[in-house]
Amino acid sequence: MSTVRGPQDVKRMSVEELEILAAEIRDFLVAKVSRTGGHLGPNLGVVELTIAMHRVFDSPRDKFLFDTGHQAYVHKMLTGRQEGFDQLRQRGGLSGYPSQAESEHDLIENSHASTALSYADGLAKAFALRGEQRSVVAVVGDGALTGGMCWEALNNIAGARNPLVIVVNDNGRSYAPTIGGLADHLSALRLNPGYEKVLDLVKESLGSTPLVGKPMYEVLHAVKKGIKDAVSPQTMFEDLGLKYVGPIDGHDVVAVESALRKAKGFGGPVIVHAVTRKGYGYRPAEEDEADCLHGPSSAFDVETGKLLAAPSVKWTHVFAEELVDIADERPDVVGITAAMAEPTGIAALARKYPERTYDVGIAEQHAATSAAGLALGGLHPVVAVYATFLNRAFDQVLLDVAMHKLPVTFVLDRAGVTGPDGPSHYGIWDMSVFGVVPGLRIAAPRDAATLREELREAVAVDDGPTILRFPTGSVAADLPAVRRVGPVDVLTEAERKDVLLVAVGAFGQLGVQVAARVAEQGYGVTVVDPRWVRPVPAELVTLAAGHRLVVTVEDGVRNGGVGDALAKELRDADVRVPLRDLGVPAQWHPHGTRAQILGDLGLTAQDVARQVTGWVSRLDDAGERELPVPAPDAWGVQAK
Amino acid sequence: MSTVRGPQDVKRMSVEELEILAAEIRDFLVAKVSRTGGHLGPNLGVVELTIAMHRVFDSPRDKFLFDTGHQAYVHKMLTGRQEGFDQLRQRGGLSGYPSQAESEHDLIENSHASTALSYADGLAKAFALRGEQRSVVAVVGDGALTGGMCWEALNNIAGARNPLVIVVNDNGRSYAPTIGGLADHLSALRLNPGYEKVLDLVKESLGSTPLVGKPMYEVLHAVKKGIKDAVSPQTMFEDLGLKYVGPIDGHDVVAVESALRKAKGFGGPVIVHAVTRKGYGYRPAEEDEADCLHGPSSAFDVETGKLLAAPSVKWTHVFAEELVDIADERPDVVGITAAMAEPTGIAALARKYPERTYDVGIAEQHAATSAAGLALGGLHPVVAVYATFLNRAFDQVLLDVAMHKLPVTFVLDRAGVTGPDGPSHYGIWDMSVFGVVPGLRIAAPRDAATLREELREAVAVDDGPTILRFPTGSVAADLPAVRRVGPVDVLTEAERKDVLLVAVGAFGQLGVQVAARVAEQGYGVTVVDPRWVRPVPAELVTLAAGHRLVVTVEDGVRNGGVGDALAKELRDADVRVPLRDLGVPAQWHPHGTRAQILGDLGLTAQDVARQVTGWVSRLDDAGERELPVPAPDAWGVQAK
Repeated sequence: MSTVRGPQDVKRMSVEELEILAAEIRDFLVAKVSRTGGHLGPNLGVVELTIAMHRVFDSPRDKFLFDTGHQAYVHKMLTGRQEGFDQLRQRGGLSGYPSQAESEHDLIENSHASTALSYADGLAKAFALRGEQRSVVAVVGDGALTGGMCWEALNNIAGARNPLVIVVNDNGRSYAPTIGGLADHLSALRLNPGYEKVLDLVKESLGSTPLVGKPMYEVLHAVKKGIKDAVSPQTMFEDLGLKYVGPIDGHDVVAVESALRKAKGFGGPVIVHAVTRKGYGYRPAEEDEADCLHGPSSAFDVETGKLLAAPSVKWTHVFAEELVDIADERPDVVGITAAMAEPTGIAALARKYPERTYDVGIAEQHAATSAAGLALGGLHPVVAVYATFLNRAFDQVLLDVAMHKLPVTFVLDRAGVTGPDGPSHYGIWDMSVFGVVPGLRIAAPRDAATLREELREAVAVDDGPTILRFPTGSVAADLPAVRRVGPVDVLTEAERKDVLLVAVGAFGQLGVQVAARVAEQGYGVTVVDPRWVRPVPAELVTLAAGHRLVVTVEDGVRNGGVGDALAKELRDADVRVPLRDLGVPAQWHPHGTRAQILGDLGLTAQDVARQVTGWVSRLDDAGERELPVPAPDAWGVQAK
Repeated sequence: MSTVRGPQDVKRMSVEELEILAAEIRDFLVAKVSRTGGHLGPNLGVVELTIAMHRVFDSPRDKFLFDTGHQAYVHKMLTGRQEGFDQLRQRGGLSGYPSQAESEHDLIENSHASTALSYADGLAKAFALRGEQRSVVAVVGDGALTGGMCWEALNNIAGARNPLVIVVNDNGRSYAPTIGGLADHLSALRLNPGYEKVLDLVKESLGSTPLVGKPMYEVLHAVKKGIKDAVSPQTMFEDLGLKYVGPIDGHDVVAVESALRKAKGFGGPVIVHAVTRKGYGYRPAEEDEADCLHGPSSAFDVETGKLLAAPSVKWTHVFAEELVDIADERPDVVGITAAMAEPTGIAALARKYPERTYDVGIAEQHAATSAAGLALGGLHPVVAVYATFLNRAFDQVLLDVAMHKLPVTFVLDRAGVTGPDGPSHYGIWDMSVFGVVPGLRIAAPRDAATLREELREAVAVDDGPTILRFPTGSVAADLPAVRRVGPVDVLTEAERKDVLLVAVGAFGQLGVQVAARVAEQGYGVTVVDPRWVRPVPAELVTLAAGHRLVVTVEDGVRNGGVGDALAKELRDADVRVPLRDLGVPAQWHPHGTRAQILGDLGLTAQDVARQVTGWVSRLDDAGERELPVPAPDAWGVQAK
């Protein structure tokens, strides 16, 4: 493997050398990812596929698109980036996704599923229009095919008829029923030589799919269908005008290469159906039926596949536990996940109440609008997704849920700065984007107790949607309030009312530390956790009016965030206390640990304290005193 | 027809009476809509279908979902709302969409396509869980099936296996290639008695589809396929586990009723494929090949179908004309529409450069991400959509386009307050929601000249996406600037620098009128049009610092809008000039004309002038004077 500096070296190899290369790549992946964490299972599954792609096509002249990008590790190794794996997903090191900055062989950088076919359609159209003879190759997981965007793209690709190779990487790991057309292909090609071998692999790898399990397997592989199917050559893809090649054993490099060559020469859109096995070739991954060591978050033991880090209680666990408790009491509460039952904690509900849990596939739009339907039918759905993924359903949350004033609770895990997964996984947009939705309430718990409490408050709301958002990682230490003003928790207060520090969510702890540091400079800080940040509690305005300076600190973009929203409330009420808002700049942020990124952004107790002290001391210099409490509606401002 | 007060009356009728009823309904629809404007063609196409639905099912116990809601007029007539049609889509009158406030027979109110199947999935799951025996019937146009959400929903409906009737209203009006599975059904059922009759109708109604035309027809109806298909009973829907009934002649009320009864009794998910003809039974609509009198915007002549209102130059026309001029000069500029070529003006480009224009179907997500692909391939795509519909592609604009710094121009027609189509068509969210996207620039032209100019500036940007947004209706009168400061146009200025009025986009004219009125009270107003509102031009901050009061007025929600963004810039620069922001409250607004709604919101010259005068005179009362120009970075604030 050490002789491979680029795709040309792979092109020169014999079949025997390729088999050795594949084995070396697997050893390398396990060795490296076991030290850094990262996406393992998916990459073990695409070793032969990626090798074959680099033999048949000419990257970077030909364009490779990975959907999702977390299956691009082998591609990185074959394009001169082996050394980078020691720093995988670490600050300044190799990205866990394709990266234009890293290599001319990389094109699309983001990690949201189901996008590659749309990019491919555009690229193929551009090359056709410009008269350029280049191949476009999209590798799409069968899970990604459950996202509606893929369907939109297939429609358009079929209509445009440009050359384009779509590799369906069918590892049977989509949790939800996957697309029915695939069933056609497998059944139609059942008489194909070699098919039985592939089918065995399919059966083996699909034997124990979580949650939906059997129906998915049946739909995908048409086992319920009678003998008549075996003689039918027609397929959904062919109806659309897409040539179909397969199914092929995705771990047979010769077979994959041959299929790709056939596809390349066709001159129109082609689907290559490769059956692979997630985690292939590494026993602990193959034996991990739940997720094939999909993406160990940190270093693990190579022998067992177990994480080395001591287990800790995550925000997710607290949510999962409380949701089950609520479900015990309320039969109307149901759960929805978009193909991420384990990572979002919905799996706990599914284990106890499978009939009240719905896994909709990688389909956030459907998650939101089917939740609206469930609510119209008298239930209270709890939709648990990563914060970054709810952006996919903004329109559905706005119109389908909120406009109908339906009680749906969205629980956003991995909100705020996330870290190792890079810019497309940051959950920093929600408070701004969903903050404009009329009637939507947003809560940001600061610790386990408030998470439990606010989740209960959220599912008690019956006249509109709610969002509960919390960060990634271990839950913050308990931080009891000294008193409560309306919905607002006062976390600490001083005799002097210099600064009102509004600490959103998990920044509560930071707020208390800031107050202690600022107190050393002789200033008094009142630290509050608003608990519910949208709409802005009226009590915050009153509290602000009693201080000389308001500072907000939030784990989300500054534009349109809690700081902006409170500033608007202060303007509307003519409260002229100056406000400073700290948060995440609306920019693209690199990968690194959450702590590193927060440090880079100055969102540490030390940095915030220094800023607050600077601001309040300038007020002293300017001779400014406390401003009078305003008369409400002094300016007769327009209603919000 | 006058005897029909509710569904029970329809249930009692004989076949002969039903035929008379259908004819009366068509006469009524034409007579009423010819006076008010509204959706005509789609409703003429579903007369028999809606009658049959009310005979077979028991609304409101059974639930009807229309996708989209603009085909619910007949449903409204059959559920006691005939009188309301005199005030259709007028303020205080009947909504153009289903409305819970109007009737217990209405459920989903919004008008964005492709959502009904997701609602239906949720409703059916809720009824199953609660043990309620009710039918759920979704009517989905074939155009709506090009939206990916439908695919997500079909996957889930098939997996859940709950009783649910999906009526595919196939009127062949989807501009983009429509779903291939339908081709199966038609071909498989070609031997069915009565099929030839339906096929004739299909051929007749699909003969001249705009833009994509033939390929769509071929894909939908499988005419290219050989004889082997005729003996294949397998279908995509059946692979998914969906029972299929059809195709049936959607204008044969007996046939439709029989199919629906069959579907109702099945006990699982069923697709009923009804072939209908948009505009059926009204000659001017049938002869209008382009859009079958889809939705005349105002009163029209019943004999000819021509609008009575004198034609005027719309914002859309100016955009369409300038885009073609730009395309003449720049071969890299291409256009994208999401099934709305005529309403967005992209049709003009398509007529001159069909090979450079792409209609992607009702698929805004694909529109955005395939545009990213086109841009990666070296082109500059211009994506023209209604402002309300770009919300569907927020995530794609954020990550697929902006994160990759790709030059794509989004042109948002019908931005701001729209009016007659009610709350779900308001284009008031874009400046807030897309305002958070890093590297995205937003322009709001105020008249034809600035629209042309800013469109050219937008397509000249090569390092990221741009948005150009303008309202519905006739273009505003030309309003030349007196001078330009950076990108900011000064529209009028006075000797006294009391107020800086930031008038966004088409509010420029209003701003000038406000200045004249406020001047009568002795105050000087500088009116500026920022032209580019995101990012906020630095010049606005400098200008603000030279006045005593800043007022912003924008045609979008206040939360996170231009006012908020400028307020943040002033805070960050420590410019303490008070700011007041006027705009649209983030609430649900009723239908009515744009002028009526703006009046209701106080966004008229008279109201704004009164507010501004009030605010500035209070500054006098308080004895406040001009504030000093601040030292830049006086507070050492965090970088944005």
